[in-house]
Amino acid sequence: MPDDEALPPEQLVTALARKARTAQIVLAAMPDEDKANALRSAAAALREDGAAILAANAKDIAAGQERGLAAAMLDRLALDPDRLEAIALAVEKVASLPDPVGNVIERTEQPNGLQMTRVRVPIGVIGIIYESRPNVTADAAALCVRAGNAALLRGGSEAVHSNRAIDAAMSRGLVNSGVPDGAVQLIPTQDRAAVGALLKAAGEVDMIVPRGGKSLVARVQEEARVPVLAHLDGINHTYVHADADKEMAEAIAVNAKMRRTGICGALETLLIDASYPHAAALVNRLLETGCQLRGDKRAQSLDQRIGAASDEDWDTEYLDAVLSVGIVDGIDDALAHIRRHSSGHTDAIVTANADAAEAFLQQVDSAIVMANASSQFADGGEFGLGAEIGIATGRLHARGPVALEGLTTYKWQVRGTGQVRS
Amino acid sequence: MPDDEALPPEQLVTALARKARTAQIVLAAMPDEDKANALRSAAAALREDGAAILAANAKDIAAGQERGLAAAMLDRLALDPDRLEAIALAVEKVASLPDPVGNVIERTEQPNGLQMTRVRVPIGVIGIIYESRPNVTADAAALCVRAGNAALLRGGSEAVHSNRAIDAAMSRGLVNSGVPDGAVQLIPTQDRAAVGALLKAAGEVDMIVPRGGKSLVARVQEEARVPVLAHLDGINHTYVHADADKEMAEAIAVNAKMRRTGICGALETLLIDASYPHAAALVNRLLETGCQLRGDKRAQSLDQRIGAASDEDWDTEYLDAVLSVGIVDGIDDALAHIRRHSSGHTDAIVTANADAAEAFLQQVDSAIVMANASSQFADGGEFGLGAEIGIATGRLHARGPVALEGLTTYKWQVRGTGQVRS
Repeated sequence: MPDDEALPPEQLVTALARKARTAQIVLAAMPDEDKANALRSAAAALREDGAAILAANAKDIAAGQERGLAAAMLDRLALDPDRLEAIALAVEKVASLPDPVGNVIERTEQPNGLQMTRVRVPIGVIGIIYESRPNVTADAAALCVRAGNAALLRGGSEAVHSNRAIDAAMSRGLVNSGVPDGAVQLIPTQDRAAVGALLKAAGEVDMIVPRGGKSLVARVQEEARVPVLAHLDGINHTYVHADADKEMAEAIAVNAKMRRTGICGALETLLIDASYPHAAALVNRLLETGCQLRGDKRAQSLDQRIGAASDEDWDTEYLDAVLSVGIVDGIDDALAHIRRHSSGHTDAIVTANADAAEAFLQQVDSAIVMANASSQFADGGEFGLGAEIGIATGRLHARGPVALEGLTTYKWQVRGTGQVRS
Repeated sequence: MPDDEALPPEQLVTALARKARTAQIVLAAMPDEDKANALRSAAAALREDGAAILAANAKDIAAGQERGLAAAMLDRLALDPDRLEAIALAVEKVASLPDPVGNVIERTEQPNGLQMTRVRVPIGVIGIIYESRPNVTADAAALCVRAGNAALLRGGSEAVHSNRAIDAAMSRGLVNSGVPDGAVQLIPTQDRAAVGALLKAAGEVDMIVPRGGKSLVARVQEEARVPVLAHLDGINHTYVHADADKEMAEAIAVNAKMRRTGICGALETLLIDASYPHAAALVNRLLETGCQLRGDKRAQSLDQRIGAASDEDWDTEYLDAVLSVGIVDGIDDALAHIRRHSSGHTDAIVTANADAAEAFLQQVDSAIVMANASSQFADGGEFGLGAEIGIATGRLHARGPVALEGLTTYKWQVRGTGQVRS
C-alpha cells in the first residue's frame, strides 16, 4: 500500500488497525472449516511462490552479509527449500488444530431462570513484533487467523524482503479462500516509530505479542499502552536434588544446556544439592561437552576448570554454551535461589524422591515447573498444543506456551425470558 | 506503620510490596480450609470492632460534610450497624466460596510419557485502588486472600478513617488465624504519589484493579506499568427489536435504566427498531418514571418531551436518570451503532424472535451480552459467582464480573521420568 506508507506512523497504524478490525469482524463469524481451508490455501500459495520467496530471502541475506550480521543471525534469517516447506507444513498443522472459538467454558442457570454461558471468542486485532526469523510471519498469521483474529505484523528490517514475499503469498491464499483482505497485514514501513505507534494504539489494537531480544522487550515494557503478552528472559534453573539418579541428572543437565543453547528453554543455572554425591562427575560431564562453567566457591572446588561466577551471572540468560553452577543446602535453599533469580519461565528438579518432586512442583511459581525432564521441552509443540506464538512469562491471561487458546478470550451470554432485577 | 509512612512513595510501595510478597508465598501454600477460617475470623473481628469502625466512619462523614461532599458521595461513604453487618456477612460469603487454587484445568500425557498438568495458582500481589465506599476495603481483601493473593489497598482520602478501622479489624482477624502479617495492607499515606508508585511497581505488584471514576481510570491507563484489570465505562445499550414483546420491552427498559441509575450496569442508550410498533408507548413509560430522554430526530418525533441528543450523548455514561434514545433500521443497524459506541460492558436485545436473539448474542462483542433481561443483572452475585472485585471491560485475562477465578492464574507442571529432548 504505497499511499499509506507515506502517512505519519500513528495515522498509518490507525489506518491498518481499522482495516484489520473490519476484516476481523467478518473473520470472527467464519465457520471453523472455512478458516481451516483458508490456511490450507495459504500454505499452497507459499509453495507456489517458493521461487519468489527464496529470491527475496537471498536479497536479505546479501544485505545482511554486507552489513556484517553475525553468522547465527544470518542462519536464523536464511531460507532454503526445506525450510520453506517446513513453513508451509506448519501453516497446515495450524489448520488441523481444533478451533477454540465457540467453545463453552461454563454454563449455569440462576434461580431466576437466567442462563449464563461463558463462551470463547477471538481477542480481535493482535500486533506481533518480531525479529529476524521470517517463519514468524507465516506462523503468527496462521495462529491468529485460526483463532479468528486479525494480525498486524512488524518484522525486523533484516528480513524485510522475505517477510513481504511470505506475507504476499499468505494474504493471497487467505483472500482467495474468503478471508477478508486486511485480516493479515505486514506493516509496510521499517520506520521504528511505527513500532511505537503500534504499542500505543490502545482501543485499535487489542494485544501485542513481542518476540525478540532484551532491547525489544524493554521498549515494549516502557512504551506499551496496549496489553502485552509478556515474554521475558528464560533464566531457567535445574536443581539436582540429593536423591537424584546419577545418569538421569547428567543426561538432563547436558540436554537442557547443550541441545540448543540459543532457545529460551535452555538451562542457564544449575543448582546442585550439597548432599548430592556425584557433583564432581556431573560438572565433569558438562565440561566435557565444551560448556563453560561459572560457579560459586563451593562449585569451583569441584573442578579447577570452573571459573568464578559474578553477581550478574545468576541473573544472566547466556543463550550460549555457558552455565552458572551453584551449590545449595537442601530444597529450601534451592527454592530461595530460584525465587530470587528465576525469570519465571521454566524451572526443574531432578530427584528420585517423590515428596521432593511434588514440593518443588507446588512451590516454584514459574510458568513451567518440571520434575525429571529437560527444560528444553518448554515448547508448545512438545506440550501437545500443536504450535505456539510464544512462551508467556507474565502472570495474567496466559502462561507458558501460548497457542490458540491464548489467542482467544471469552464473553458472557445471558439468555432470559424477561427477567428484571428487584 | 509510622516509620514507613515517612519514606518517599516509591520506597514505601516497594517496602509494602516486598512484605506482601513474603506473606503471599506463605498464604499460597495454606490449605483451603485455613484460608476460609481466617476470613471467618476477620468477619468476627469486624463485628468486634463495630463501635470503633462506626466512630471512625463518623469522622469521615463529618470531614466530608465540612468539605461539602455531594449527598450521593456521603451516602456511599456512610456506614451504620446494618451496613457493617452486611460487610461482615460478605466476608463470610467469600469464605464459603469454592477455592479455585489447585484446580486442574487440563491434564495430558504426551507420547514420550511426559505428563502435563495445568493447575490454578494465585496471581500474587494485587493492588486495588478505589474511592469512597469503605466496604471495598473488606471485600477486596477477602477476595484476594481467599484466592491466595496478598492485597495492597489504596482507598480514597474521604474514607481514610473508615478504611483504617476496617483494615485493622480484618488484619487482626486474619493474623490471629495464621495468615501472615502483610497479606493485607492498607497503604498508610494519602499522598497521591503513592498511587503513581503502585502503578509503576512492575515486578513487585502483579496486577492492579482500579475501582473508581473516569479520572482514576484515565490515570491508570496513562501511568500503569503493572498489568491492569481494566474497568472502563458502562455505556450499555438495549436494543428493542421489531418482534419484542411490548410489556417485556417496557419492563426491561425501565428496570435497566431506573432501578439504580448510578451503577455500571445501568442502561445508557436505548435503541428502538423503526419497525417496533409500540415505540411511543415505550418512551412514554420511561418518561413517566421521571427519566429525561435525549433522542435522534426520529426518536424526538415520538414524543415532544424528548430533547435532542448531541454527538457526545451517544458516548456518555450518564449514571443518572437520563437516557439516549436512537431509532435503528433492523438488527444490522443496531449492531453497527453498538460497535461504534459501546464500551464493551453489557449490551442487550429484547425480542421474541429466537434467531434475532442468537444473532445478537453471537455478534455483539461485549463482556456481557444479554437477550431478554435487564442489564442491571451485570453483577458477580447475580452471575452466581458469590461476589465480585469488579466488572472487567478489557479483553485479556478476565471479562465481565470478576470473582475468585479472575484472581488466579495457572502454571504448567510437567512430570517426567528422565526424558530429554532429541
